Amino acid sequence: MITVKEIAKMCDVSPSTVSNILNGKTNMTEETRNRVLKVVQETGYKPNYYAQGMRRTNNKTICIITEELCQSFSTPAIVESIMAHAESSGYRTFLINMSMYEKWKKAYNGELGNEHLLEENTAPAFLEAEAVRADGVIYVAAHGRILDCVPNDYDIPVVFGYGMSKDNIYKSVVIDDSNSSEEIIDYLISRGHKKIGVIGGKPDNFHTMWRMEGYKDSLKKNNIKFDKNIIEYGDWERASGEKAAEKLIAKGVKTIFCMNDLMAAGAYDCARKKDLIVGKDISIFGFDNREISEYLYPTLSTSEIMLEKIGIKCCELIIEEIENEDFRNTKKEPYRIMCEITHRDSVV
Amino acid sequence: MITVKEIAKMCDVSPSTVSNILNGKTNMTEETRNRVLKVVQETGYKPNYYAQGMRRTNNKTICIITEELCQSFSTPAIVESIMAHAESSGYRTFLINMSMYEKWKKAYNGELGNEHLLEENTAPAFLEAEAVRADGVIYVAAHGRILDCVPNDYDIPVVFGYGMSKDNIYKSVVIDDSNSSEEIIDYLISRGHKKIGVIGGKPDNFHTMWRMEGYKDSLKKNNIKFDKNIIEYGDWERASGEKAAEKLIAKGVKTIFCMNDLMAAGAYDCARKKDLIVGKDISIFGFDNREISEYLYPTLSTSEIMLEKIGIKCCELIIEEIENEDFRNTKKEPYRIMCEITHRDSVV
Repeated sequence: MITVKEIAKMCDVSPSTVSNILNGKTNMTEETRNRVLKVVQETGYKPNYYAQGMRRTNNKTICIITEELCQSFSTPAIVESIMAHAESSGYRTFLINMSMYEKWKKAYNGELGNEHLLEENTAPAFLEAEAVRADGVIYVAAHGRILDCVPNDYDIPVVFGYGMSKDNIYKSVVIDDSNSSEEIIDYLISRGHKKIGVIGGKPDNFHTMWRMEGYKDSLKKNNIKFDKNIIEYGDWERASGEKAAEKLIAKGVKTIFCMNDLMAAGAYDCARKKDLIVGKDISIFGFDNREISEYLYPTLSTSEIMLEKIGIKCCELIIEEIENEDFRNTKKEPYRIMCEITHRDSVV
Repeated sequence: MITVKEIAKMCDVSPSTVSNILNGKTNMTEETRNRVLKVVQETGYKPNYYAQGMRRTNNKTICIITEELCQSFSTPAIVESIMAHAESSGYRTFLINMSMYEKWKKAYNGELGNEHLLEENTAPAFLEAEAVRADGVIYVAAHGRILDCVPNDYDIPVVFGYGMSKDNIYKSVVIDDSNSSEEIIDYLISRGHKKIGVIGGKPDNFHTMWRMEGYKDSLKKNNIKFDKNIIEYGDWERASGEKAAEKLIAKGVKTIFCMNDLMAAGAYDCARKKDLIVGKDISIFGFDNREISEYLYPTLSTSEIMLEKIGIKCCELIIEEIENEDFRNTKKEPYRIMCEITHRDSVV
């Protein structure tokens, strides 16, 4: 069977140029690339990934393990960002999707996040990552929390995205819920809002708790007394936002900070039924900057989770861990990525 | 190094039970699973994927090649569906994402779909699929068209999703644009609409052309004369929908079929500016059933692309091709999956 070396000779280029072309890199002229690909095709050369894996210690492979690819709105953009950054750094990626949301829904009637069921899926996923001789694993959580799902004595580097590892055993990259929320409340206060109601997610959810911290910090800084009567909790879905908004409006609240855009849409529904005009009679602020926030009427002011940045940071960390053993012993506190406010038409 | 056989003996189960557990299957009692996983952990057993690959002819691996994972709204759901179906059929998946939209945008200033640049990326992707000893490849197109991107003499089965292969060399699964569009127009006519304007995507796009066919078929069947003056074309984006709607409304059109939901949102924008109430003064029908269609006000009637069904069909076809050599010679005409209408509040 023909080898890369022989192809290189036939094309009058170096073997590494042939490898680069086969790995999809583009740092050579188009003429060279076409010439090599033509010879590759003519000779019927087929790289043997397995043989390569047996031979090399560094496979230039990052395994991405996702809890949920599609039903978590944050995961696809993080994954795509990791893949793009890995590719431009000369790494291939291997994705294992555990599809946990379906499994959680079936087993626990909609209650997401049961860690026992998770373990049954992470154990084979992490084994598979080792089996494919990945140099490192990026674990992408479907929603933020503290995770204890890596097998003991796992001996390749791991980085967590969107969730963090228990006792900070591994490095992680999460959103800065607390400071991002504080920034939103600071902004609303700067616009003259003082009685700011909150529609949180489920109360025991980390995003909810961290964002509540930021809310309280901002009030404190601005000498506004915290009033627990104007805090309501939903379940992240639209209908729960409508219900919570109804209670808040009944208490005279005219400014509502919603912890996600879907519940903000529910608050819009409530306002419409009460003939209150959003952005005039009532102010609503969201969180996430999902696509829908531009399609609500009026458009929703919200804060964007920088998913691409999270993916890039995860990828930078794992590559640094792979290539620099000393880095593995550096601090493990989570990297927190600030969200970015997008001003639209829903705030007076 | 300890083997699966030895672990099986220690746990008093069959080797295949151990393999099944390591592969994440759940068709055994929880007690058995926990017992085996405990032994696996204690013994430090690590499966060697590469060694397995060298040994087996059937790796039970499907490679998914995507043109674009995230920026194409249709791809994530198709991929997730393929992965779920593959998992339940005992296949692992390996995803290669070519991130073509970024590459096309950089190279061609936003003009998507250039097939020359595509080839440079598909060649290494298909080689990689062979290198990893995939048993079959599912190629998921970012938008529908006829594709000629598989290397000559590629010798493992290939199925196309969301696009079709040139000259039907490979099996493919696409949306039934023509019949789905005909069904929409039939419905509008049944509601008494006769002068139905169209906002199409780019005129040379396959989805546009196929949906126009369905539009014309419905008119013909219902004895309504085709009037090319009430056909406008956009670029799939919201702003182009607003512009096109303005022209149509100026021509007295009160019923608009938009070929995607984003352009329908643009038609809403136009209606609002003209103080026309959607669902009362004017009827708007979308296509795709994206998340936004439920968040527009009033909610948008539209037709849903059955992405999950497309994924499942792709997966069924590739497994059949892998496991049944005779099937490889059966007909290659594309499988067309009908969209499903969702009635909401935007049609009189």
